[in-house]
Amino acid sequence: MDDLAKAVRAFRDERDWLQFHNPKDLAISICLEAAELLEPFQWKAPEEVVAFLAEDENRRQVSREMADILILLVSLADVLGVNLVEAARAKLLENARKYPVERAKGNAKKYDALQL
Amino acid sequence: MDDLAKAVRAFRDERDWLQFHNPKDLAISICLEAAELLEPFQWKAPEEVVAFLAEDENRRQVSREMADILILLVSLADVLGVNLVEAARAKLLENARKYPVERAKGNAKKYDALQL
Amino acid sequence: MDDLAKAVRAFRDERDWLQFHNPKDLAISICLEAAELLEPFQWKAPEEVVAFLAEDENRRQVSREMADILILLVSLADVLGVNLVEAARAKLLENARKYPVERAKGNAKKYDALQL
Amino acid sequence: MDDLAKAVRAFRDERDWLQFHNPKDLAISICLEAAELLEPFQWKAPEEVVAFLAEDENRRQVSREMADILILLVSLADVLGVNLVEAARAKLLENARKYPVERAKGNAKKYDALQL
Repeated sequence: MDDLAKAVRAFRDERDWLQFHNPKDLAISICLEAAELLEPFQWKAPEEVVAFLAEDENRRQVSREMADILILLVSLADVLGVNLVEAARAKLLENARKYPVERAKGNAKKYDALQL
Repeated sequence: MDDLAKAVRAFRDERDWLQFHNPKDLAISICLEAAELLEPFQWKAPEEVVAFLAEDENRRQVSREMADILILLVSLADVLGVNLVEAARAKLLENARKYPVERAKGNAKKYDALQL
Repeated sequence: MDDLAKAVRAFRDERDWLQFHNPKDLAISICLEAAELLEPFQWKAPEEVVAFLAEDENRRQVSREMADILILLVSLADVLGVNLVEAARAKLLENARKYPVERAKGNAKKYDALQL
Repeated sequence: MDDLAKAVRAFRDERDWLQFHNPKDLAISICLEAAELLEPFQWKAPEEVVAFLAEDENRRQVSREMADILILLVSLADVLGVNLVEAARAKLLENARKYPVERAKGNAKKYDALQL
């Protein structure tokens, strides 16, 4: 992950793109890439999603969209000085408090609905 | 990152949530979390974004939203059997071909506009 | 629709909000509201969506999110000087050319896949 | 608007697409089209947005993306039995209560921050 962060930074700096990497536009980009990730699943029933992902080329395409999001997250983390993996680890602990096992088990409700 | 993937999987399995983790809904979740990441930047001019992020609590809130996206990416990578960091590394090489330094330097145009 | 456009404009101008209504932030807002519209459908299988929408309060909540998007579209159309209904009518004609009945009938494929 | 709703319904039924028009996938589509609307504004500073929209062809392209969203909203309203314009009118009244003129004037804060 550290190596990835370095590679992302090198890619950006070789192209002199840091000037464009303001947090608002990076957040917009993440939104747009998230939409591209969602796109192939549109209009597909659950069993069609399974069939779609059974093909290697489709799974590869989906993984490319996931990669775009990760690259942008790493870029945003870089300009904000955030340690992304540590932030995820901390958030997971927070989520563990919001979704206690005894209540959340087998239950997809959002935590505010869970607390009721 | 491997440890994070393990922690994400443990969190999910303790709650018996694998049953909900179909790729379509995970992709939807990533979209929704990306929107939450974008939300604080809405209606803010560039200089207001800078002022907003100068406050620790705001930067922490933004890093929490970034963490949510990474956790979901890791979850999706897990059900698809994708190595996320490797996918990002491969995508970066692909992007390097799509955005050659000599053309892309200091230029925010999309690659299809760049080629013209 | 003309009355709605007038009401949206009056609402905005009473609050002196035209200054915030630049097209980029309005487009961001439409994205965020679209995410809110999608949110209640997340983690729901097709039959759960049906059950969810069978309840009046849920349908009302969904229609409120749809309303937010329409209000923002009308606001954006106003600052751009676009006639929204006419634009939709023209786009429908364009779509009719992209998706000829004989090929598109009963087929959810995107037009570029259809042409193959 | 009534004519538009009829035209949207006719377009859909000629292609036998009602079978795909479940609310979850329509909400996904609205999200994806909202992302396409946002896309041309990405990486553009406020003054670049103005320059971009000064060109007719760009404004036309943006209005086509807006049209796609309206067509999908009308499609979703149709399957849910929602009167879209009436919903927007009701939401505007609700917003007027949430954002009282005396507090909201010249202020882009969200209503929950406003109430403080």
